[in-house]
Amino acid sequence: MSVQEHGRINNVSVVCKANVYFDGKVISHTVLHPNGDKQTLGLIQPGEFRFGTELPERMDIIAGACRVRLADADGWTTYGPGAVFHVPAHSHFDIAVDEGLCEYLCSFG
Amino acid sequence: MSVQEHGRINNVSVVCKANVYFDGKVISHTVLHPNGDKQTLGLIQPGEFRFGTELPERMDIIAGACRVRLADADGWTTYGPGAVFHVPAHSHFDIAVDEGLCEYLCSFG
Repeated sequence: MSVQEHGRINNVSVVCKANVYFDGKVISHTVLHPNGDKQTLGLIQPGEFRFGTELPERMDIIAGACRVRLADADGWTTYGPGAVFHVPAHSHFDIAVDEGLCEYLCSFG
Repeated sequence: MSVQEHGRINNVSVVCKANVYFDGKVISHTVLHPNGDKQTLGLIQPGEFRFGTELPERMDIIAGACRVRLADADGWTTYGPGAVFHVPAHSHFDIAVDEGLCEYLCSFG
């Protein structure tokens, strides 16, 4: 599902209430597509956070940088703007931001 | 401009890159309407912040609470979920969050 043109997601609905995790250190807004597809557009403050997955997730880094450790990985991989990583369904991943903000777009399914 | 239904903003484009102010203590995502209208959907961490306006702004509080002092006001007014305040064009306002997060939808023009 790639519906970005020029850094925009077009023809969608946005849920006004944000998703707030880890005391506000991770927040996102949910974007809903006419076909039922869902994305979340979010920001991560410095820190290290673990998220579980139900559906497969594709993470696009929009700005900033993060380190990521998948459930089956020994070490961390660093991702910057334009990078993409995938997380399998029914798994988890650790994501860490060392400084500044990391902005991401998460696509499900 | 009221295009919210059931807490959603429909038929819009969303800019992936967030607007980041005050070292990330205030962030928002820009929402663009087919007719050119613009809104920003944002979150404010605890602190006190001053914003200038070019266009008139309507601020809808989505969640949490804030205190607001308009340019011509002596004191602060507290707003909670569902509340709305207006800021004139070419002015400024102080907005303060005492605890938690304040979520807002800002409509311009």
